[in-house]
Amino acid sequence: MSDVGEEERTARAALTRIVEPGDETVGRWLRQTAPVHLVQALFGGRDMSSGVSKEKFQGLRMRAARTDIDGAAADLAAIGALGGRFICPGDDEWPQQLNDLGDGRPIGLWVRGRANLRMWALKSVSIVGARACTEYGAHLAATLGAGLADRGWTVVSGAAYGVDGAAHRGALAAEGASVAVLASGVDYAYPRGHTELIHRLAEQGLVIAELPPGDHPTRSRFILRNRVIAALTRGTVVVEAELRSGSLVTARRATELGRFTMGMPGPVTSGLSAGVHQLLRGEAVVVTDAAEVVELVGSIGDLAPAQRGPVLARDLLDPVASRVLEAVPARGGADSRRLARDSGTAEEVAQGKLFELQSLGFVQRCGAVWELARRSVGATGSRRGGA
Amino acid sequence: MSDVGEEERTARAALTRIVEPGDETVGRWLRQTAPVHLVQALFGGRDMSSGVSKEKFQGLRMRAARTDIDGAAADLAAIGALGGRFICPGDDEWPQQLNDLGDGRPIGLWVRGRANLRMWALKSVSIVGARACTEYGAHLAATLGAGLADRGWTVVSGAAYGVDGAAHRGALAAEGASVAVLASGVDYAYPRGHTELIHRLAEQGLVIAELPPGDHPTRSRFILRNRVIAALTRGTVVVEAELRSGSLVTARRATELGRFTMGMPGPVTSGLSAGVHQLLRGEAVVVTDAAEVVELVGSIGDLAPAQRGPVLARDLLDPVASRVLEAVPARGGADSRRLARDSGTAEEVAQGKLFELQSLGFVQRCGAVWELARRSVGATGSRRGGA
Repeated sequence: MSDVGEEERTARAALTRIVEPGDETVGRWLRQTAPVHLVQALFGGRDMSSGVSKEKFQGLRMRAARTDIDGAAADLAAIGALGGRFICPGDDEWPQQLNDLGDGRPIGLWVRGRANLRMWALKSVSIVGARACTEYGAHLAATLGAGLADRGWTVVSGAAYGVDGAAHRGALAAEGASVAVLASGVDYAYPRGHTELIHRLAEQGLVIAELPPGDHPTRSRFILRNRVIAALTRGTVVVEAELRSGSLVTARRATELGRFTMGMPGPVTSGLSAGVHQLLRGEAVVVTDAAEVVELVGSIGDLAPAQRGPVLARDLLDPVASRVLEAVPARGGADSRRLARDSGTAEEVAQGKLFELQSLGFVQRCGAVWELARRSVGATGSRRGGA
Repeated sequence: MSDVGEEERTARAALTRIVEPGDETVGRWLRQTAPVHLVQALFGGRDMSSGVSKEKFQGLRMRAARTDIDGAAADLAAIGALGGRFICPGDDEWPQQLNDLGDGRPIGLWVRGRANLRMWALKSVSIVGARACTEYGAHLAATLGAGLADRGWTVVSGAAYGVDGAAHRGALAAEGASVAVLASGVDYAYPRGHTELIHRLAEQGLVIAELPPGDHPTRSRFILRNRVIAALTRGTVVVEAELRSGSLVTARRATELGRFTMGMPGPVTSGLSAGVHQLLRGEAVVVTDAAEVVELVGSIGDLAPAQRGPVLARDLLDPVASRVLEAVPARGGADSRRLARDSGTAEEVAQGKLFELQSLGFVQRCGAVWELARRSVGATGSRRGGA
């Protein structure tokens, strides 16, 4: 179920080794040139056609010269060994909303984890904020992460210390869906102290990156990573940020991309809330809990089909999802443990499928219980409340 | 300098004894009937013309029957003995913006203090919030009160415990202008614990009320008092308020009246900030300090003529104000103590006049120093910053 051939996939994988994330020049080339041709030109010495800056091209060629042309195949093998994959524009799993980044959209994404990124991202919110947050900020982020997860929303963040980590942990603790967007390879745990958290996210959620396996983060990669967080989600919530914090860049990027930008206020006497308040005096909306976030991001457009009934015919589901769906009782509901047992799948697999089924509009979540989605025929009034 | 005759003043004073604040029915009658005639009808048994509800009229007549028709003269004597006055629509000191209350505008205002209410109210902001505020709220209110006073703005509040008191005290501590709007007579200190504060406000600032001297507050009078606070000022800042707090009513009233509505955020975990956050999710703007308040309220319309040069010719100033203005040195400035000495007036009198002169655009304040206002000829760009 993909328009992407193996040659193109390998070419794009090779490009992620030598092109920095968000490189719009290369993005423009890729609109005009097939990835395979670009790779042949960069690695094989073939010349590029007109419209390409020589200087830029030479720089990339030098980077290519320092890397093995077969490195891409090795990277693809490595991600496979991690139980992951490399997805590209054109793949079914590619989140369409990343295309809003224009020529700066990722060349591809390295993904670890069982869930379908595209499905999870349909109903997702990012939570960002200070690494050196206060107890107050950590508490808010964890509570918000758990609250969004409880309402069936995917929590996206950057796996950093402070707010990021608390948000992921809150979502995981609520047995919800969470996606970490790294500024390094998906197997390169940064910060080191979050090795265990990132491992758990890869098991229970998703860990994604533009950089190939093994690659390390840099200062600029952190900043460019933020655009993926902003673009991937329906809205960004900033929980504690100083003036001139990187989180504010993410938030403003979200606004530019037409996403919702939200901030959780704090004491005006706290420097760690000053950036949030600055944002709230501009484009951002005050939110104080998960319900308010969902009310906002769930209210307009409604990308997520959950309340309009399934978008996919039931017989097009993959076999495992189909078995999990079969296991959901017609009345009442069941927790993921029982559904895993009744469908004969591992609980973690069942959970991932349940979130996908939710995004597709087949099931809905109420606390720990999953039940069949009620079709809201003509019930437009009830749609505003979100999940 | 008034269009109000003594008969009308006495009649309006008498009406404040029997008509509750904000009575729009009586306000409508007063558009059609001279106050003197209304009083004659209520106290003297004369009938009212058509368009008057009999039931309502009888109710007021019963209240009139329980009061002395000469009570108004006694009240006027009492306010005079307190060094105060009773001002009415049509008086030079009447703040025009109160007319935005329509038929609910006060019948008149009992005023204690030396300053000119109209002048002081030109550049005024109200600070409202919880009586049972936290230390955080009290700190914010005091700092904001002082900061606004430092910038030459008058701080208006209700003299209650908590946020109100802290705001007044902050303004007084900065030797600024502050106005208390009471829900009782101006000589009836409520709450009792604020007797000293209200006395200081009458000495250093202004204490005003719709109720005649000696009258006590009631629950509904507190609520109706809030509309005067909202209408009198350019904007209302809410500092800590629970959901369903009376301060939110004041804030919403301010919005309805086209004034600025602002809120100071706090921890989302604090019930005392929940009302503020609710407001901030609606009509109110986040502010975190006095500079941001002044930037907002000083930016549009600019009722205050401070930066456009005087609105009143210098030779129309009253003799004391004129002497104080003469004392301000052409270069540099002087504090109020020196200006009082050089103009031969009491320091408190000089201070009141200096705030009036500031409102009229003759002088400006920089910390403790008063100096002649610079005419900002064509300097529209600098006007946005406010005072």
